Amino acid sequence: MIQEVKGNVCAPRGFTASGIHCGIRANTTKKDLALIYSEKKANTACVYTTNLVKAAPIAVTKGNLQDGLAQAIICNSGNANACNANGVEVAHQMCALTGKALNIDAKDVVVASTGVIGKELDIAPIANNIQTLVDALSADGMSAAQAIMTTDTLPKEIAVRFELGGKTCTIGGIAKGSGMIHPNMATMLAFLTTDVAISSAMLSKALSADVQDTFNMISVDGDTSTNDMLCIMANGLAGNAEITEENEDYALFAQALRQVNTYLAKMIAKDGEGATKLLACTVTGAPNQETARIVAKSVICSSLVKAAMFGADANWGRILCAIGYSGVDLDVTKIDVSFQSAKGTIDVCKAGAGIPFSEEKAKDILLENEIGILINLNSGEAKAISWGCDLTYDYVKINGDYRS
Amino acid sequence: MIQEVKGNVCAPRGFTASGIHCGIRANTTKKDLALIYSEKKANTACVYTTNLVKAAPIAVTKGNLQDGLAQAIICNSGNANACNANGVEVAHQMCALTGKALNIDAKDVVVASTGVIGKELDIAPIANNIQTLVDALSADGMSAAQAIMTTDTLPKEIAVRFELGGKTCTIGGIAKGSGMIHPNMATMLAFLTTDVAISSAMLSKALSADVQDTFNMISVDGDTSTNDMLCIMANGLAGNAEITEENEDYALFAQALRQVNTYLAKMIAKDGEGATKLLACTVTGAPNQETARIVAKSVICSSLVKAAMFGADANWGRILCAIGYSGVDLDVTKIDVSFQSAKGTIDVCKAGAGIPFSEEKAKDILLENEIGILINLNSGEAKAISWGCDLTYDYVKINGDYRS
Repeated sequence: MIQEVKGNVCAPRGFTASGIHCGIRANTTKKDLALIYSEKKANTACVYTTNLVKAAPIAVTKGNLQDGLAQAIICNSGNANACNANGVEVAHQMCALTGKALNIDAKDVVVASTGVIGKELDIAPIANNIQTLVDALSADGMSAAQAIMTTDTLPKEIAVRFELGGKTCTIGGIAKGSGMIHPNMATMLAFLTTDVAISSAMLSKALSADVQDTFNMISVDGDTSTNDMLCIMANGLAGNAEITEENEDYALFAQALRQVNTYLAKMIAKDGEGATKLLACTVTGAPNQETARIVAKSVICSSLVKAAMFGADANWGRILCAIGYSGVDLDVTKIDVSFQSAKGTIDVCKAGAGIPFSEEKAKDILLENEIGILINLNSGEAKAISWGCDLTYDYVKINGDYRS
Repeated sequence: MIQEVKGNVCAPRGFTASGIHCGIRANTTKKDLALIYSEKKANTACVYTTNLVKAAPIAVTKGNLQDGLAQAIICNSGNANACNANGVEVAHQMCALTGKALNIDAKDVVVASTGVIGKELDIAPIANNIQTLVDALSADGMSAAQAIMTTDTLPKEIAVRFELGGKTCTIGGIAKGSGMIHPNMATMLAFLTTDVAISSAMLSKALSADVQDTFNMISVDGDTSTNDMLCIMANGLAGNAEITEENEDYALFAQALRQVNTYLAKMIAKDGEGATKLLACTVTGAPNQETARIVAKSVICSSLVKAAMFGADANWGRILCAIGYSGVDLDVTKIDVSFQSAKGTIDVCKAGAGIPFSEEKAKDILLENEIGILINLNSGEAKAISWGCDLTYDYVKINGDYRS
């Protein structure tokens, strides 16, 4: 049994976190520097952006995690540390400063950044405040969740608890998203912690397997960031028998991980820049999993579908259009489409053609803030779900002048 | 020498056109039915949408053009005649009605539709008004250009004149675009006419070769329509020696065709739904043509780049980001980026990293309504240009409630 509990990255044993305003962001007091610390060196796995243009912290973290071990995560917001001449040097300095202040090896530090691309990141505010950040470490991870936010409107946190061989185990996580959200093999920034004892190999396997049905299935605007990173630290303090193979314990751990990542992924989609609605597109009846995923992603990424949902307009033709250009081979005359929300379900398309439906009822359903787009391809048994958000005036407003 | 002249599809010899309000659009008097007629049966070539979901008129036109000949184009707006149970039947009826009224074979009619997907198209308004439409045929094609518009704000027309073997030849065209614009192998609706004598085979060849650098290089919102169609009729009335091979005449014809299609494609991009700016992304220094095209398309399609241009924000990091996720393999540390408009040029990124620049001058340049995004990959000799528009509040407004 997996139980959701209050908390975040500090919920598992042996983890503390902190978040402060150090001054990377000028003209504001918003927190901009976060730290997560494990009292015991942890098996650590990461997945990263597939963007060819990678931020400097990605390269540095990859190097540091070659041994699969880490003890701390340092992350700033307000500057992506990407496309800079001295980015790698600054990312190394962030690790060195963190390692020194925590009395750990700089190589055991995961480093991440988020914010504007192409501005040099000044190390001074970090150097001047790293001790304050370390001194602020506590069992309350909320300040870290706040410090990694950019245009997010809400911090995103979750923790789940379950038992392995009689030992209570916990996975906790925080994430930030909002814009430039179209993860591929990785995601926006999401940091997970767990006290489960699990080998590096199995931890990597679980994370990579999970991400393709969670973070890789969300999209806010189709833009894959240069800084995406999903990281999990497992320090083993729960005391369970270490997971080293795909046994029952692994299955339960993977199930708990799925719950955490699905929640954070949905929260990122729901809090997309300017979003007023969470969209969930469920594709069933697909000939295979890959087809189901491609169709679900294509629909959730369509600007026209997203704008229609903003307007609570049951314009299902745009959904068929997005399926049609997704690139998969399908018999489009078999497709059924329905809309769903707390107000009910309405069928709008059967066998690829429109059917009569009450526009009034459809409007009523689509005015809710969580909308399901249900697509049955009637061509097999495979299924996938993607999550996204509507396209709104505020998305344009936020991105029309993000830097100012 | 190719000279731009006043006019449209009626500029070449032997073509007339008309456009009327027949009543497909309710609650408005906007024109919704267009006809283009050639007094002589014409060699005719078409390229179509690659969307798997194809509107009924696409299938019917493909059938009718198996012999490469046509004498008329009938097109309605206000209803896409796509995803309907009886769509093919209605499209056939449109051809039959047109053929009968013009006293030509129904198989010599090209049929096209544009508008809302998934609503049955009532043949009655067309049947009741086909004679009026035929009676209205004249040498003024403007009413036809108006009748194919949906959310377009301006009709799009062009004509060019050139000489082949001492004979004056003309190509004319009209187009409509605005939303769901992300052509692939074809485009929105664009109808071209010419009095050049050219074989079916060479006409098809010229059209297919041209489209990949013109209509396929524009994007408004990344959504490839179910109804895209680009059609050219060549009736041979100019009296030139028929073009049957890739000789000098073919080269000049192709050059004139390029001018017509580039103009119409740019007009479609500029008049994208809600657009306030035309964006032209020029990629140079690419290792090959395909890479240049992919990079140019990726940048012009990025919602974040488009929103930044709306806000006149020189946020070039988003351009590097869009290059990075485009899927091509490149050395990103070689990339230079500049912005250009009537107000001048400003370099913002050299060798993949930001350089100091005047934000004030950049703002001044980006406040213009035609913006060039100049990208030098410094990795070869190939070049491509893509065209698009900014992402604005009005795009969201228009698409939040398109059907009402």
